[in-house]
Amino acid sequence: MRATVMHGAGDVRIETVPDARLIEPTDALLTVTRACICGSDLWPYKSMEPSEKGRRMGHEFIGVVEEVGADVRTIRPGDLVVAPFAWSDGTCVFCREGLQTSCLHGGWWGGDLDGGQGEAVRVPQADGTLVVLPVDRDDALMPSLLTLSDVMGTGHHAALAAKVGPGKSVAVVGDGAVGLCGVIAARRLGAEQIILLGRHPDRITLAKEFGATDIVSGRGEEAVQRVRDLTGGLGAHSVLECVGLEQATVTALSIARAGGAVGRVGVPQEGSIPAALPTFFGNITIGGGPAPARAYIEELLPDVLQGRIAPGRVFDRTTDLEGVPDGYQAMDAREAIKVLIAF
Amino acid sequence: MRATVMHGAGDVRIETVPDARLIEPTDALLTVTRACICGSDLWPYKSMEPSEKGRRMGHEFIGVVEEVGADVRTIRPGDLVVAPFAWSDGTCVFCREGLQTSCLHGGWWGGDLDGGQGEAVRVPQADGTLVVLPVDRDDALMPSLLTLSDVMGTGHHAALAAKVGPGKSVAVVGDGAVGLCGVIAARRLGAEQIILLGRHPDRITLAKEFGATDIVSGRGEEAVQRVRDLTGGLGAHSVLECVGLEQATVTALSIARAGGAVGRVGVPQEGSIPAALPTFFGNITIGGGPAPARAYIEELLPDVLQGRIAPGRVFDRTTDLEGVPDGYQAMDAREAIKVLIAF
Repeated sequence: MRATVMHGAGDVRIETVPDARLIEPTDALLTVTRACICGSDLWPYKSMEPSEKGRRMGHEFIGVVEEVGADVRTIRPGDLVVAPFAWSDGTCVFCREGLQTSCLHGGWWGGDLDGGQGEAVRVPQADGTLVVLPVDRDDALMPSLLTLSDVMGTGHHAALAAKVGPGKSVAVVGDGAVGLCGVIAARRLGAEQIILLGRHPDRITLAKEFGATDIVSGRGEEAVQRVRDLTGGLGAHSVLECVGLEQATVTALSIARAGGAVGRVGVPQEGSIPAALPTFFGNITIGGGPAPARAYIEELLPDVLQGRIAPGRVFDRTTDLEGVPDGYQAMDAREAIKVLIAF
Repeated sequence: MRATVMHGAGDVRIETVPDARLIEPTDALLTVTRACICGSDLWPYKSMEPSEKGRRMGHEFIGVVEEVGADVRTIRPGDLVVAPFAWSDGTCVFCREGLQTSCLHGGWWGGDLDGGQGEAVRVPQADGTLVVLPVDRDDALMPSLLTLSDVMGTGHHAALAAKVGPGKSVAVVGDGAVGLCGVIAARRLGAEQIILLGRHPDRITLAKEFGATDIVSGRGEEAVQRVRDLTGGLGAHSVLECVGLEQATVTALSIARAGGAVGRVGVPQEGSIPAALPTFFGNITIGGGPAPARAYIEELLPDVLQGRIAPGRVFDRTTDLEGVPDGYQAMDAREAIKVLIAF
């Protein structure tokens, strides 16, 4: 079968790899119908050491179940399913608490396993991992449904970790697809004011349509001052950190109101969080991490199916599998917000 | 009047200073009846640059109101009152939210203001700051009531920030007076397991009496492994960081269970918090800061008055004002847990 393999920084290839197949009795085998490229795929795209063997890519996908192992109970051949970006057994102590990213018997796509950016995927722990979608494989809602695998769940997680709620002021650091989904999530949770920190005109336009009430395009101290001006001098109750760089984290902490919360979902690429000012003295809570997207699919799915949210609009380019390397390049160059792969 | 002035590291003196007096119409003037030395007073005691003028010390005290300004409404001469370690107006947006340490018109004792380790104190924003105690000035409960000014409220704050609750496993990093009050707070909030990380026999004895179920006396990786062993390999749901040094913070983050929370109340003395592992990937929340002790006095006072908690037991030495320099020395040398000053 054909799949995406990254061999080093800037070196993404579509290659013929061994066919995906069932190995464990808890596996399902999927033909992928939709997948996409994640902002987090760009970190290795910028920095990966050259590798002959390479690394399978992709952790967001929808597919049709072809075959299931003997122990699979809830998923059947023919089902259209969405997979969250981490697989999980659904039964361990963390899964029962809704933190499937810490599943004791779970893991992450790609690496030595199949990745979503390929024709087929072996899904471990199929019962715990997959959610059946009540639509046809080419339904017009596919882009929004695909965001439930990661980016919409991640924006939602940032908003929950930042304690967004009715009447709150919210600041979203980062205008990538996660930040834009953070805007959707903040609005959905009742935020009164939603300030997006970003500088790309196309993303700003989309953010406003998603519910952003204010845009701050400066950086560093200028941005901090502007957010303070917009929040009566106090800072935002809830800050969604959707980048992962140290400077973005410092900005996020600096624009949070005393007693407020920062929800961080950008995968940390650098060292540390300043321990003292203003975080400690302002009693600012820092929460977040990899989103338990699996836990949020049931909650967000009805809103997608009924059209109350349309996170699929973050996809502004579609490609086939062979076009994936160009998709990486376009996202890295900020020519595309997020690239959808249709099979 | 006589008061404690710190002139540099290791240099604490009892000096004659200008008498405390009313300045603002919202002030109250107190004769101090009890005060104490705080673990946080030891940071400047270790590191303060020499200063001719010096710095007034003490932020935990109980006293009798001698006189009030024209605008004071709820506090009267003759009242016995406890002061939290930050003064606050009680009416600003943060005070109304119970975060009096961020009061827009508040501040901290000592420095250029009177400190608690002296014969008298001018209390700004008396209505917002002070709480009347329904006991006599020499009541046997004085030590426990005095802890409401800081150390018990701080332990409680750490427990709340760490999301302690019924059935939870709790780890307390630090066996100082704050850590010991953290043990009291954790038990009071229903924790099932309370692990104290500490190494001083007298403090360990007290911690067990306060409700600690396990003691871990190792350090670093050894302590981390031991806490994991004690928590089924998972780590503690709630970790109270009651030290403030970077190593203690790293330990606290390393022993937290995925999805758990670290409540930090040790004033950060050093740089930074590691941004990534294990905090981010385990979705560990970091909360806390200076405790809004004022907010907690009403909640904790009945428990003290009715003898359900006895945090005053953290005082293992009592001195008069002239003995305060020796008290600093004893606490710095770990010969005393916490020193009470009786006037």
